[in-house]
Amino acid sequence: MAKEQLIPKSDNISEWYTEVIKLADLADYGPVKGTMIIKPYGYGIWEQMQQALDSKIKDRGVDNAYFPLFIPMSFIEKEQSHVDGFAPELAVVTHAGGEKLEEALVVRPTSETIIYNSYAKWIQSWRDLPVMMNQWCNVVRWEKRTSPFLRTSEFLWQEGHTAHETHEEASAMVEWAMDSYASIYRDYLAIDGYVGYKSASERFAGADRTLTYEALMPSGKALQSCTSHDLGQNFSKVFDISFQSRDKDSEFVWQTSWGFSTRSIGGLILMHGDDNGLRLPPKIAPTQVVIVPAKLTDEVIAYGNQIMEHLKQRSIRTVFDIRDDETFGYKLNKWEVKGVPIVLKVGPHEESDKTLTFRRRDTFDEGTFQFNELHVSIETLLGEIQDNLFTYSRDLKLKNTRQAQSYEEFKNILATHQGFIKVCWNDDADIEKKIKEETKATSRCCLLNSQVGGVDFYSGKPADKVWIFSHSY
Amino acid sequence: MAKEQLIPKSDNISEWYTEVIKLADLADYGPVKGTMIIKPYGYGIWEQMQQALDSKIKDRGVDNAYFPLFIPMSFIEKEQSHVDGFAPELAVVTHAGGEKLEEALVVRPTSETIIYNSYAKWIQSWRDLPVMMNQWCNVVRWEKRTSPFLRTSEFLWQEGHTAHETHEEASAMVEWAMDSYASIYRDYLAIDGYVGYKSASERFAGADRTLTYEALMPSGKALQSCTSHDLGQNFSKVFDISFQSRDKDSEFVWQTSWGFSTRSIGGLILMHGDDNGLRLPPKIAPTQVVIVPAKLTDEVIAYGNQIMEHLKQRSIRTVFDIRDDETFGYKLNKWEVKGVPIVLKVGPHEESDKTLTFRRRDTFDEGTFQFNELHVSIETLLGEIQDNLFTYSRDLKLKNTRQAQSYEEFKNILATHQGFIKVCWNDDADIEKKIKEETKATSRCCLLNSQVGGVDFYSGKPADKVWIFSHSY
Repeated sequence: MAKEQLIPKSDNISEWYTEVIKLADLADYGPVKGTMIIKPYGYGIWEQMQQALDSKIKDRGVDNAYFPLFIPMSFIEKEQSHVDGFAPELAVVTHAGGEKLEEALVVRPTSETIIYNSYAKWIQSWRDLPVMMNQWCNVVRWEKRTSPFLRTSEFLWQEGHTAHETHEEASAMVEWAMDSYASIYRDYLAIDGYVGYKSASERFAGADRTLTYEALMPSGKALQSCTSHDLGQNFSKVFDISFQSRDKDSEFVWQTSWGFSTRSIGGLILMHGDDNGLRLPPKIAPTQVVIVPAKLTDEVIAYGNQIMEHLKQRSIRTVFDIRDDETFGYKLNKWEVKGVPIVLKVGPHEESDKTLTFRRRDTFDEGTFQFNELHVSIETLLGEIQDNLFTYSRDLKLKNTRQAQSYEEFKNILATHQGFIKVCWNDDADIEKKIKEETKATSRCCLLNSQVGGVDFYSGKPADKVWIFSHSY
Repeated sequence: MAKEQLIPKSDNISEWYTEVIKLADLADYGPVKGTMIIKPYGYGIWEQMQQALDSKIKDRGVDNAYFPLFIPMSFIEKEQSHVDGFAPELAVVTHAGGEKLEEALVVRPTSETIIYNSYAKWIQSWRDLPVMMNQWCNVVRWEKRTSPFLRTSEFLWQEGHTAHETHEEASAMVEWAMDSYASIYRDYLAIDGYVGYKSASERFAGADRTLTYEALMPSGKALQSCTSHDLGQNFSKVFDISFQSRDKDSEFVWQTSWGFSTRSIGGLILMHGDDNGLRLPPKIAPTQVVIVPAKLTDEVIAYGNQIMEHLKQRSIRTVFDIRDDETFGYKLNKWEVKGVPIVLKVGPHEESDKTLTFRRRDTFDEGTFQFNELHVSIETLLGEIQDNLFTYSRDLKLKNTRQAQSYEEFKNILATHQGFIKVCWNDDADIEKKIKEETKATSRCCLLNSQVGGVDFYSGKPADKVWIFSHSY
């Protein structure tokens, strides 16, 4: 089925992207413009990520909670840069319970304002700090141009919100969140990227500093994959979140917020899909191994069940596909499109020899091993596939990161290559705007610990920071 | 702290309810009328329930998915009884992205209409059936009178939606869902109740038949705790969810929907709280055991850590409270209000003897056991507490279920007792309305398998079904 329908990824990656989502049954369009239905297979991937990230969040002592969907318009308006940033994207409830509301309600685009309104009530003394909460929820940002997973009017995410006694503590939290996200991207999604902080014009509306994970997609465009914000005292001052310090002074708390969304699934598809469909890294694959019987005889089914039980006992997510209305070839193709890391083919031959024939989704390598070495072989293979996909992503990033000393060189690279461009630059919003107008490229991030003695690629003045620029999603 | 502040439950249970939620730090009021913030301790209870229920749902082959929050108004209007039921409670988005929308969007009060619009596209043949999906999400119903957990403008729940080839299969699904819910209520929340189906005037807007779990609260009022609906072909006909049958005919699917919400936490508080605060059944307690040190010496802390490690290895959810800014007595009181099933007191005496002193939250029984019998003793105690709380709830239900042969008798019982009244009755919406106006009592459910030869308590005509009536939340 899919092989005939799916266009080559390199021909038109955005068309390929839309098609692969459909063929792998990840999502469908919602009836309202820009909305998306996350179908079970797509949601299964999200659940794997949630589990991994939620456990990191809990280990850090951050508690899950739930704050209301509706935010009074007046809250959003309290922090000036926040309202400037979000106003164009708000969805507004004006009527409820058959009546016009006195104050319009905003459907949360992010929850800083409603959460910090409560923090102001709950925090009195340094003994109440830190307050560290997280919620898994839906948010709404009314976008003009949308694409499944990458940019949808409503999306799912987690948003962490913390309040601290000192800026030092808050900074550590901002970095911890980004480290955790980077580990999910690298170790689970097998997506390498650069960590750095955002420029003045790209940072979160209301933050002093925003850390980001920027991953290069095979299209040559960057995906801003998740962010972690140092909010300083911007919100604590406007929401009056003050506390009595150890010295009995009244002080404002230092705050952070950080979010990881279903956009990550878009990155996963773009990064690891190929001309035959998805390729899922084993750690987040809802199904890691599928057993496809060559014949539906009693012996083969008994053997398949034996294999499945064995793998399930080792917590390997396994499906035994015994549908009787699809051919062997159709099934192989179906699971290939869905990107299941390993297919085990079992037929009368394998059953009588107590062997297994495997096919890796990432390389299409095939091989045979003995039933009695089953779980060791499978665990080894899953590890190899995970590593192989990460290596692909890391190489893609490294091969497509180029250096430019001047704006001329920068434009020449853009004219011939897609990818990241490393430059020395002094963050300046006006200059960034000009570069964007002329080249459509924007700064992605300033690399951490990138102190160098260099020359600003645009102005020629001294500059001591290394930035990454590129086109982006 | 709390003992002084909390009023006796029997004095004024609704005032007690509000206070205990605050003192146990379960929830707070949101800034918008009728909304609620679920604080970490309350959310921790929800997570325990989610985990138990989600695993039942997955085991049944129902897949998690996610459908959009916003439903076009025209969808809601398709099924007449559905719109009649929900219209007064809708929250409506009229503006988004800075513009007035062409069609107003409803914030989902429940998702039948948006989900079934997709099912119509996805289902073609009997081979596509059953389709069984579930989502964990927020819903909004604009209620005039609200109360934390019991009735809030926004609440969290899961909603399952299935489509089947036959009515028989759909019926089995409706019953499976209610069996699963009843098991969560009985085995986890330790709340006994009656299972039955709703009267014509109380059933879900759009259902042919609604199963409900009705639990009697200590206030004497019933809590409709969760529902499971046989939707027949009501939605499939208006949304045109048809399929080619095995006989190549075009047929409409048979559907079910079923939901379990954060209202359950309200039931839990009402049922098992006492004059000293919450009492949590061990199976859903976020913290099952708390270790409170009598002195913060190195030896006691080392011993406490040893106990905690030992319990955590047995998957017993344990907290070791080593805060240094609260006294021993304050801590005991704090955990009592929070309803943690077992408190272990450890001091120099226990440390040197390698013993433990426990206090049960449900009975306040105290005792001592040896460290080397630690986990066995704790597991036994947790089991006993779980059983004891369930017995309390079952007895409350049985003692407060009375029978009435006539309307006169029915009214006499209501005048002197709170609780359930069992009657023979022929379901009739007009009569139910009259009874409600005169007594404020409504039918809660018709008991399953309650075929009897009897006389309708209201009309005196023959009646063969047994119904439960009562006041309700």
